[in-house]
Amino acid sequence: MIEKLTVIAPGLLGASIGMAARQKGLAQTISVWARRPEIRETLSTLDWCDDAPESIDDACRDSSLIVLCAPVERIIDLAQTIAPGLENQPIVTDVGSVKSELCRKCSDALGDKARFIGSHPMAGSEKTGMDNATPNLFENATCFVTPLAESDSNAREIVSKFWKDIGSIVVEETPERHDALVANVSHLPHLVASCLARHLSQTLPDAARFCGNGLKDTTRIASGDPGMWRDIVTQNRAEIVRSLDAFQDELQALRADIANEDDFSILEKLADGKSFRDSLDA
Amino acid sequence: MIEKLTVIAPGLLGASIGMAARQKGLAQTISVWARRPEIRETLSTLDWCDDAPESIDDACRDSSLIVLCAPVERIIDLAQTIAPGLENQPIVTDVGSVKSELCRKCSDALGDKARFIGSHPMAGSEKTGMDNATPNLFENATCFVTPLAESDSNAREIVSKFWKDIGSIVVEETPERHDALVANVSHLPHLVASCLARHLSQTLPDAARFCGNGLKDTTRIASGDPGMWRDIVTQNRAEIVRSLDAFQDELQALRADIANEDDFSILEKLADGKSFRDSLDA
Repeated sequence: MIEKLTVIAPGLLGASIGMAARQKGLAQTISVWARRPEIRETLSTLDWCDDAPESIDDACRDSSLIVLCAPVERIIDLAQTIAPGLENQPIVTDVGSVKSELCRKCSDALGDKARFIGSHPMAGSEKTGMDNATPNLFENATCFVTPLAESDSNAREIVSKFWKDIGSIVVEETPERHDALVANVSHLPHLVASCLARHLSQTLPDAARFCGNGLKDTTRIASGDPGMWRDIVTQNRAEIVRSLDAFQDELQALRADIANEDDFSILEKLADGKSFRDSLDA
Repeated sequence: MIEKLTVIAPGLLGASIGMAARQKGLAQTISVWARRPEIRETLSTLDWCDDAPESIDDACRDSSLIVLCAPVERIIDLAQTIAPGLENQPIVTDVGSVKSELCRKCSDALGDKARFIGSHPMAGSEKTGMDNATPNLFENATCFVTPLAESDSNAREIVSKFWKDIGSIVVEETPERHDALVANVSHLPHLVASCLARHLSQTLPDAARFCGNGLKDTTRIASGDPGMWRDIVTQNRAEIVRSLDAFQDELQALRADIANEDDFSILEKLADGKSFRDSLDA
């Protein structure tokens, strides 16, 4: 069991981590730090939170595992903020959805004050905030753990075990390979859904009158927070451009088949798409 | 109340129409014609079907409203098949998802033997077949009714009322405007979802290991029947190419913003997408 778990900046993910850790009895003490006083006040009434100090150093003091749960562009700052106060080399992880730059910079910021191992739980939804938190959020969700070559292997094992214990399916990858993977399975789908929604907003602003469940499903994630997604995009630009280009080639090939009346090739492409999609539910 | 309702070729849609009509007491008699003897045998045991004759002419005899429920490429054939046997100018409608050519050809095929009014209920899913039928399928679903300028206005009213009575929200449009609309709200999303799935099947065949709910939602409709969608595409080629081109422009503009680090423009585009998507749930 973890002696002290610290959750920094609890939103949907951080609060869900705290709830899951309490429900599954993974930590003796759970300390939580939030910037806003009114959140700290709420936290002090919640049964999964033992302690919500005003000082981030107090929240991290004697912690075994610190989870930085802020939006991706604030995580490096948080690592820099907590570094000076740390003792006994606690393990630090995060929930940021882009990893290459973040893992390098957090490791540098923490230096020998802590052992940093990046994480990216693929959980959450277009709903954000502590109010939507649930202890089941990570159940059967993929969680990437992205150690650097030089990372402490014991810390890596503890972080992986933690995510498994709260219900995730852990996949270990290098930060670079992680970023290429999520560009394809997460960032590209988001941008495609968003572009489809924007195209319709301009072509058919009253499309809601005509829309079926297919359109709703296909565009659902476009409801995600634009600022958060802008930050994700800016942190994974190169990989996202690469995946957009490959997707555009695919779309252009289908467009050519339709215009050229190559109906056999259309059928083949649709069948490939179906067989991949069916595999996701298998 | 309709004296006799005839459902031709019951799959998911036809059987759901029969069930809904029975549950809501919309027809005195419901007659159903299916090509395969084993389906006719099943039909004769179902409480929403009063009569499942071998002869399509018998199923249509003295009918007030005949609904052609076959896949889109077979509907014109069915209109030609039933025309000679019709008397008393029944109303004929259909469920085909592309309308311009179909409405003209069905009207021509039926001539003065019947009053044809095209319909397109936007219901159904990637699950097909009579086994998935449910009387609630049309509840709050959009149903297009697409009369020609010369169509009988009394027939148009009866068809619109029928779809309203089984729970749909009726939108009357010309067949041409319908086809442009559905190219954007239905066919384009399908092709985009399918291309995304195919792109991933080639880039990351084992993506199922890493995939979150966002990807599952965004590609869900790619599981639809490839043959059925190939037929839809071939019947609405010009409008689909037009909507694909506009969508590709949208995607290309976002790609340029990302590559050029125009992060403010990225944010604006994402916000437009969100506000459109949010409007679909309003």
